[in-house]
Amino acid sequence: MIKKVQTYLQKENIEGAFLTSTENVTYTTGFRSDPHERWLAVFIPADGDAVLICPGMETEDAKRAGWDGDIIGYSDTENPLTLLKERVPSIDSLAIEKNHLTVERLELLQGVFGQLTVHPAEHFMNDLRVIKNESEIKLLKKAAEFADFAIETACKELAEGKTELDVLSIIEFELKKKGITEMSFSTMVLTGENASSPHGTPGESRIQKGDLVLFDLGVVYKGYCSDITRTVAFGDIDGRQREIYDTVLKAEMTALEMVKPGVKASELDLAARKVIEDAGYGDYFPHRLGHGLGLNVHEFPSITSESDFVLEEGMTFTIEPGIYVPGVAGVRIEDDVLVTKEGYETLTKFPKTLQTY
Amino acid sequence: MIKKVQTYLQKENIEGAFLTSTENVTYTTGFRSDPHERWLAVFIPADGDAVLICPGMETEDAKRAGWDGDIIGYSDTENPLTLLKERVPSIDSLAIEKNHLTVERLELLQGVFGQLTVHPAEHFMNDLRVIKNESEIKLLKKAAEFADFAIETACKELAEGKTELDVLSIIEFELKKKGITEMSFSTMVLTGENASSPHGTPGESRIQKGDLVLFDLGVVYKGYCSDITRTVAFGDIDGRQREIYDTVLKAEMTALEMVKPGVKASELDLAARKVIEDAGYGDYFPHRLGHGLGLNVHEFPSITSESDFVLEEGMTFTIEPGIYVPGVAGVRIEDDVLVTKEGYETLTKFPKTLQTY
Repeated sequence: MIKKVQTYLQKENIEGAFLTSTENVTYTTGFRSDPHERWLAVFIPADGDAVLICPGMETEDAKRAGWDGDIIGYSDTENPLTLLKERVPSIDSLAIEKNHLTVERLELLQGVFGQLTVHPAEHFMNDLRVIKNESEIKLLKKAAEFADFAIETACKELAEGKTELDVLSIIEFELKKKGITEMSFSTMVLTGENASSPHGTPGESRIQKGDLVLFDLGVVYKGYCSDITRTVAFGDIDGRQREIYDTVLKAEMTALEMVKPGVKASELDLAARKVIEDAGYGDYFPHRLGHGLGLNVHEFPSITSESDFVLEEGMTFTIEPGIYVPGVAGVRIEDDVLVTKEGYETLTKFPKTLQTY
Repeated sequence: MIKKVQTYLQKENIEGAFLTSTENVTYTTGFRSDPHERWLAVFIPADGDAVLICPGMETEDAKRAGWDGDIIGYSDTENPLTLLKERVPSIDSLAIEKNHLTVERLELLQGVFGQLTVHPAEHFMNDLRVIKNESEIKLLKKAAEFADFAIETACKELAEGKTELDVLSIIEFELKKKGITEMSFSTMVLTGENASSPHGTPGESRIQKGDLVLFDLGVVYKGYCSDITRTVAFGDIDGRQREIYDTVLKAEMTALEMVKPGVKASELDLAARKVIEDAGYGDYFPHRLGHGLGLNVHEFPSITSESDFVLEEGMTFTIEPGIYVPGVAGVRIEDDVLVTKEGYETLTKFPKTLQTY
């Protein structure tokens, strides 16, 4: 990956890249770490050897993760930028992650290296990362398998009077027993009216007969994320709930079946949105259709009505239409999708025909 | 809190503050949200009414959280900055969170509002947040209670042959049943040699007689964080392990007993470090003594040998010396500490005399 980054740097005539997000450091060095507020970075010169910058206490972990290049392992009282300058005395232009590097850190870089010309690194990192290679797809599939397992576990736990948190705790407990210690985001278990906010918070609401129960969750597997939503029925639901469910499912399937190389991302969003609008629920679908998925749970590209991005083989993203009618019901159905040579494959496999418990 | 921020703005002659971190938005508006890559912000003019900016689908949540001011709830296809400009047509100087706002977002702000003069907001937000008020202390105590509970739970689960992940899954399971859905950071359970890296990762290592087992964890309770580390013995440990444990405990107690208003943070670090150096383990204590604790698990102030910050009543931070001898043992002991009028109170209460299971 380092070489591929260098090809971009040479083409754009930039002296080096300074990548700072956990995801881009993982992508280029194989070492994944959450540095909290400390510095984690990889410096990639247009020519020559890259240097990993990490807290000194993580140096051994980086080597174990397979990084065999140079490492600047700094202590809490050392300035890693000063240490970098000893290796790279002068640099005038640098590609940075403008959507990750803070204003403060850019000022610190400029304090050590002078008034650098900065260029964005996002476009070429997105270019590289948007097409997943075989080993990445393997990890994404594994992450999706765990997401399916989590939904199965959740459904088995449904029972009258249980709270959302009761169910949530079992899901993550069973995942941890399988070695999953990190979720892609805070797991959501929302029942009945509580599901009618697209960003509700699981709490003490109890599952009752006639509820639609919404699960939205994902796991991180060796750095790669999954993200699934399923909505299931607990007992008999009424006609309105059923209509909402069927509409969301139709919207999801409509978008899904359009997926293949050459299609624009916006076409997917517009097609799903049209299904929902035609059913009279247009005002109740307030978010985009989906988002790219990989080392980040939300990454490039965004699937909105305005994304003129063209799909290619090897891309992975979510499709997740939803309808939220306050006080009535909230339904969302979300799959992780891989663009294949001829069409698509859903990485998440849990059934989408309405499951009743 | 809005008024207090305005007092700083007026004093520094800045037209407004644009705060973007979840923590500062929570602190000033009472609304806590994780916006992922979307915009979440509060704009506070030096005079007049503040505006909360959040995804449209979270507008109701913000009101429920108690925010009764103006809200810009934007959809995925709207630019929240353009909407802000409709309310605030012109602004020349702005305090931003330089350690949170990205270079990209500053460029977007400048794209809409022109070449703003930007000032840091950190120093006054730190000033405000470093002293915790009664209701914050109550929440921090509650978060610490849950951390103690988690350690108790963990200790009960220790058994020969269990893996680190077995124990970890029980801890978080029991916490979820009590309503805790968010940890301050990835929980650590490390046994034997695996504890001898200060940033080890819990995995399949099995607990064996003669191991020291290290737990490092914390919970988020209504936005406020706890952070505790305890190291306990499983079966009989040898003299070297005991020496390391006793040294860390002495270092921790030495620093702790110095805590009171008027003391410099650096004095704490240096005192603990001296205990460890005198015992011959100076090279095996590679990190700072501690960090501020509140809405962030790591916040201002940092407790290092160079922090000339003076302690005041109402501050909360961690004290967490450690010794990590590769292949031998890793021991860390960490408490959450509140500076009181006369001295200190530890919010975390689990015993620190060596517990053997």
